[in-house]
Amino acid sequence: MTVKGGHVSQMKALKIPEATVSRLSVYSRFLFQVDKKGIITISSGDIAQGVGVSPAQVRKDLAYFGEFGTRGVGYNVKDLQYNILKILGLNKQWKVIVIGAGNLGSALGIYAGFKERGFDIVGIFDDNPQKVGFKVNNIEIMSMDRLPKIVKEYKVKMGIITVPSEHAQDVANYLIENNVTSILNFAPRVLNVPKDIIVRNVDLSVNLEILTFNMINQK
Amino acid sequence: MTVKGGHVSQMKALKIPEATVSRLSVYSRFLFQVDKKGIITISSGDIAQGVGVSPAQVRKDLAYFGEFGTRGVGYNVKDLQYNILKILGLNKQWKVIVIGAGNLGSALGIYAGFKERGFDIVGIFDDNPQKVGFKVNNIEIMSMDRLPKIVKEYKVKMGIITVPSEHAQDVANYLIENNVTSILNFAPRVLNVPKDIIVRNVDLSVNLEILTFNMINQK
Repeated sequence: MTVKGGHVSQMKALKIPEATVSRLSVYSRFLFQVDKKGIITISSGDIAQGVGVSPAQVRKDLAYFGEFGTRGVGYNVKDLQYNILKILGLNKQWKVIVIGAGNLGSALGIYAGFKERGFDIVGIFDDNPQKVGFKVNNIEIMSMDRLPKIVKEYKVKMGIITVPSEHAQDVANYLIENNVTSILNFAPRVLNVPKDIIVRNVDLSVNLEILTFNMINQK
Repeated sequence: MTVKGGHVSQMKALKIPEATVSRLSVYSRFLFQVDKKGIITISSGDIAQGVGVSPAQVRKDLAYFGEFGTRGVGYNVKDLQYNILKILGLNKQWKVIVIGAGNLGSALGIYAGFKERGFDIVGIFDDNPQKVGFKVNNIEIMSMDRLPKIVKEYKVKMGIITVPSEHAQDVANYLIENNVTSILNFAPRVLNVPKDIIVRNVDLSVNLEILTFNMINQK
């Protein structure tokens, strides 16, 4: 009734909720901690408690991708961790570039959390000559015309846009011309992109709004 | 069958999913744009299309809080916008402090998106004497011992932690001692806080992971 090491089932037309993907990411961080403590097996209840969701939610999220546990025994920590990373595409390293060397771009360029999860920032680009040539930690700020070469050299598929809103669409177009297929957009505007390009818009205020919602609705 | 201007029903024991709260935040941004164009009425279908979810999802999200629309007519844009902001607690301004004046802290300190949504950063704190006294835009970087006074003066309830992981718990304790009740935590560690304190952990990598998931599972 169990598959040793789990198996990642083929993705059908099945649409996986984004919330599930976010939680998988959270589970894998938790499993990483658990594994470091030398724990071999874990139940959905333990995972649920560790990350603050219900055990049923953990089982449902994992069930989208196959069967990873043994009834009455639980999950093998290392196997589950490996499988979740594979589902998320994190069993390989991704090269990423940041466009916009302002405060946010610079902060993201050196954000330790990216490296830990397999994201390697290989360049920060900006058109401001007063920034070009400077380094953010060990990453050089380069002019925009060097972007095509870097993208090609490192086979970069992911770009992070942190330029002001009015330049965001131009930057997105430029990224797409250069075969970047995934964009994380911090500029507060909607980007128009071809269908095969994946865009994720990040608005940091949403996080504060969830806090205010919880504050005013507390008990 | 409709309530003019909508009404926000009492929150019972009903637990609102966080995803709903996030979407309300997205809807309100969209309604803001729609309102600027002078549009008076909007359907759940229009909202759905504008933000990329299903019309049923829009109706379900709003139904948690009461009845805002008129069947066959739709929602009054201004009324709905007002009600959503009220639900989110954004019909007032919130004073916020940032602890940690590194790249991320500084970036958040001047992040324009916060102000637009009613979050006013009233101070950035850091214990590094080489940072204290400098300004990030118009916001002074202050030493930690000035925090109690500022929190009291501005009745600050929200703090953003961007210090290194190893200091995050101490900073959280200090915030709580000073009656801050809501914490947005960017440090990649779990904070132990009393039950009545609201913590939201932000991990910026999750956004990239949702991109990689989508990339490897694309068609």
